[in-house]
Amino acid sequence: MRAWDDYEHHSLKLARSGTTGVAHIGYRTGSPEALERRVTAIEASGYKTHGWIDGDLGHGSAFRFEDPFGHVFELYWETRKNTPSAEDSPALKNNASRFHGRGACPRRLDHLNLLSEDVTEFRRFITTCLGSRVTEYFQLDNGRLGGCWFTVNNKTYDLACTEEHGGGNGRLLHVTHATDQREDILRVADIFLENGVFIETAPHKRAIQNTFFLYVWEPVGNRVELANAGAQLILDPDWEPVCWTESDRKKGQAWGLKTIESFHTHGTPPVG
Amino acid sequence: MRAWDDYEHHSLKLARSGTTGVAHIGYRTGSPEALERRVTAIEASGYKTHGWIDGDLGHGSAFRFEDPFGHVFELYWETRKNTPSAEDSPALKNNASRFHGRGACPRRLDHLNLLSEDVTEFRRFITTCLGSRVTEYFQLDNGRLGGCWFTVNNKTYDLACTEEHGGGNGRLLHVTHATDQREDILRVADIFLENGVFIETAPHKRAIQNTFFLYVWEPVGNRVELANAGAQLILDPDWEPVCWTESDRKKGQAWGLKTIESFHTHGTPPVG
Amino acid sequence: MRAWDDYEHHSLKLARSGTTGVAHIGYRTGSPEALERRVTAIEASGYKTHGWIDGDLGHGSAFRFEDPFGHVFELYWETRKNTPSAEDSPALKNNASRFHGRGACPRRLDHLNLLSEDVTEFRRFITTCLGSRVTEYFQLDNGRLGGCWFTVNNKTYDLACTEEHGGGNGRLLHVTHATDQREDILRVADIFLENGVFIETAPHKRAIQNTFFLYVWEPVGNRVELANAGAQLILDPDWEPVCWTESDRKKGQAWGLKTIESFHTHGTPPVG
Amino acid sequence: MRAWDDYEHHSLKLARSGTTGVAHIGYRTGSPEALERRVTAIEASGYKTHGWIDGDLGHGSAFRFEDPFGHVFELYWETRKNTPSAEDSPALKNNASRFHGRGACPRRLDHLNLLSEDVTEFRRFITTCLGSRVTEYFQLDNGRLGGCWFTVNNKTYDLACTEEHGGGNGRLLHVTHATDQREDILRVADIFLENGVFIETAPHKRAIQNTFFLYVWEPVGNRVELANAGAQLILDPDWEPVCWTESDRKKGQAWGLKTIESFHTHGTPPVG
Repeated sequence: MRAWDDYEHHSLKLARSGTTGVAHIGYRTGSPEALERRVTAIEASGYKTHGWIDGDLGHGSAFRFEDPFGHVFELYWETRKNTPSAEDSPALKNNASRFHGRGACPRRLDHLNLLSEDVTEFRRFITTCLGSRVTEYFQLDNGRLGGCWFTVNNKTYDLACTEEHGGGNGRLLHVTHATDQREDILRVADIFLENGVFIETAPHKRAIQNTFFLYVWEPVGNRVELANAGAQLILDPDWEPVCWTESDRKKGQAWGLKTIESFHTHGTPPVG
Repeated sequence: MRAWDDYEHHSLKLARSGTTGVAHIGYRTGSPEALERRVTAIEASGYKTHGWIDGDLGHGSAFRFEDPFGHVFELYWETRKNTPSAEDSPALKNNASRFHGRGACPRRLDHLNLLSEDVTEFRRFITTCLGSRVTEYFQLDNGRLGGCWFTVNNKTYDLACTEEHGGGNGRLLHVTHATDQREDILRVADIFLENGVFIETAPHKRAIQNTFFLYVWEPVGNRVELANAGAQLILDPDWEPVCWTESDRKKGQAWGLKTIESFHTHGTPPVG
Repeated sequence: MRAWDDYEHHSLKLARSGTTGVAHIGYRTGSPEALERRVTAIEASGYKTHGWIDGDLGHGSAFRFEDPFGHVFELYWETRKNTPSAEDSPALKNNASRFHGRGACPRRLDHLNLLSEDVTEFRRFITTCLGSRVTEYFQLDNGRLGGCWFTVNNKTYDLACTEEHGGGNGRLLHVTHATDQREDILRVADIFLENGVFIETAPHKRAIQNTFFLYVWEPVGNRVELANAGAQLILDPDWEPVCWTESDRKKGQAWGLKTIESFHTHGTPPVG
Repeated sequence: MRAWDDYEHHSLKLARSGTTGVAHIGYRTGSPEALERRVTAIEASGYKTHGWIDGDLGHGSAFRFEDPFGHVFELYWETRKNTPSAEDSPALKNNASRFHGRGACPRRLDHLNLLSEDVTEFRRFITTCLGSRVTEYFQLDNGRLGGCWFTVNNKTYDLACTEEHGGGNGRLLHVTHATDQREDILRVADIFLENGVFIETAPHKRAIQNTFFLYVWEPVGNRVELANAGAQLILDPDWEPVCWTESDRKKGQAWGLKTIESFHTHGTPPVG
């Protein structure tokens, strides 16, 4: 699967499986040299590595490694760019493929939000292994990190991690696609409604990260988010990470919506 | 064909034909008594009548009459309301059918714009026969009416007439569907682009009537408009018709777009 | 106060007072004859009348009457239309005044929602006195009406009544302004947030009446709604009122939002 | 001046002057080391340098250099971040200042478009001096570059250069601000209309770079663009520059709008 303007062969691969969740998370590096640098850093880090694989559908050889919570990551450089069929060929040559305008028709895969029992340790893992920077975080009163948002580019985040409360391992909180306008999210809410897709929580603007969002559960139970960040980017090279406290969070989301209870309990795969 | 929230069996009937344009224009009256009153007025008017027909797909007996330019009109009361199939059944019972969210997915058929050689005479015809009121009009420097907008309800217009310059008879300028948001029109512009549908003129806001609009030609050449009027309604019972002069029109549309040349020449069916 | 496209001198009059709520509710009739017919019907109804007043700021003589719950209504024909100052003069002559684009900048005052202890009785009152028709209603399992929506035009409602649970008399649930686009409502949510205005419940689409809405409390406590109905109108002259049951309401609003508790308890003026 | 979410003290500085146009263009580098590397590259390039200045309102010492067409550039690292006054303090701590919601209320200064007699030479200049990459370009049939778009981040462009046809030197084609939604651009078009601001060309989507845009001239004549790119970013590290030919450009903008004549002739300051 690809969002219509994702440039690679695919951005999401669905595999037949006995359960839900995410099997591995792949990133393309910025250059072949960057791939080498990352592998060196990962090997030096002491985190578990799976080593090189020969490649997979859509990309070349990849280096696999794992966080302490069981999420498997993969880095690669060689990729197969999307070559649209006639039916998917875009009218404008600066687009990756045709905009069909069905459903939300998101522009790109935007980010993942993972669950881990120790967000501080996940932060150490991802900043060490990917060189990500932290843009915002949620500091619990008990001193632990409740959540943390990371980026390696100008987006305000391309990966997030939230504290796992369900006793699971290597779980996914949600996968997110970005729409061009927030109107797309209101429009698709009606389409979800008409098609019996479970809308977990209302379209709303979140306080952390400012995004306009909607959460649904796809039929087998993975949470899917649609999000729009407007024109927001982090263009400040020495951006100071923003700290949110429990007292901040008590105000709810940006316009006051309370976070829905299932958001704290529903991850995939299910536990037990 | 029906827009998704049109309540009758259909709002547009496509018939196999050797040419384009509109064969007849049907209106449902507000009550059986209103139908009787209209027929009495039409018969008294001296305009050409075709008399009663037994009914047609989707509606009961109808009275047919004709304007001096060859457009055939039809009034009826008995109608067959839409009863959606399971696949088209709406999630919300106050909607006529399901919102599928494909393309512009307009909410309703909104109005027609007809061409006639003498708009003043058309105004006399329609105000006599339908009891419509005039909401806005375009007054040419030569004393003639260049265009006139009519309504029988709270919409600012449900019918318009523009001066015919192509020597045609009974021609259609365009048929218009209303979208819920103007974003829907921007979105469908991309879908038209991707599918090679001819976009005659840019999405823009018009000065007369304030509507946000987009014109395309469907494959056989009829002009189709998508329009959004925002929250605009005429709620003033003694609304004074708004006069637009040639000097007003020189300013272009609301944000300055010049009216495209083909708008004045392209009607259906083609002439000669 | 006027919304920018309201055509009369004002649509909302704020008066210094020791409390909140609505003192009286005025409607302009469709003609002088309609005013006479309404007064005849009201006088024949047995409902309490206050009789004629000479007029007030912005309108001529008016007939006052009262519902069994203490809401005072007023009907008038003669009105003073808005004549904008230079600063408020619109660029387009079919608008009532200039669009300044500040805040939500709603197009018009849309409707009121009143509270009464007996919605069935309110329905009898308003259909008798104004000749309104019922478009949708909420039928409680105990046989009572929980809410009812009325209209005298093509809008799906221009007045609503909800069951009073707080023991108040003649209270207001909220006053509503209509925006041109639902984006206006998302935009103003940010403005409310930035200015410390209490947002009672999230922007969302309601199931009953399909409108996209946002509720805030203005500084002294009256609830104000901003709403957008898209292109929805009732164009069916024999529209069948839509019945919503408690089991329907358990599904929440259109996209699942639960109705906020304060919606059932907060009316103005406060009780006791 | 700052757009509400620009993080520095200001992003646009208006100075009293006898004419229009841009006096100098400042960029903050990604680090102090990046500043050193750039200065080394610029000094080695042979392009005209003005050397270091001590600093200016809002930033520290800066290195000045000049392109062959008279545009003066400036690079600096030390900056004064915005510290909002109470009145401009944002409700959400991840925003640079308060969203007041007046006018288009753009989120950030987005880019400049400069004019030069030799776009190929400008491309050599900017890629050498800033290390920018080319994302799209317009190739004329005569072999020259008609326009070229550059970026140093994930935006599809943060600088553009168009061929100068008016004989000017160091001229500005326009300065652009980014809005969060394209609805903001439609909304501000009405505000421009109401306030007599000259709208040079309609809100439309451009083919090159995909942005939704609107051009106006501010009162003294500089062209100002408002633009929205939706969720579009360049996330492909080996993005292949997109070539547009004259034959491509004959199709007009994305939805068919022809480029307005004044776009090719109006730059600031005016010539002779």
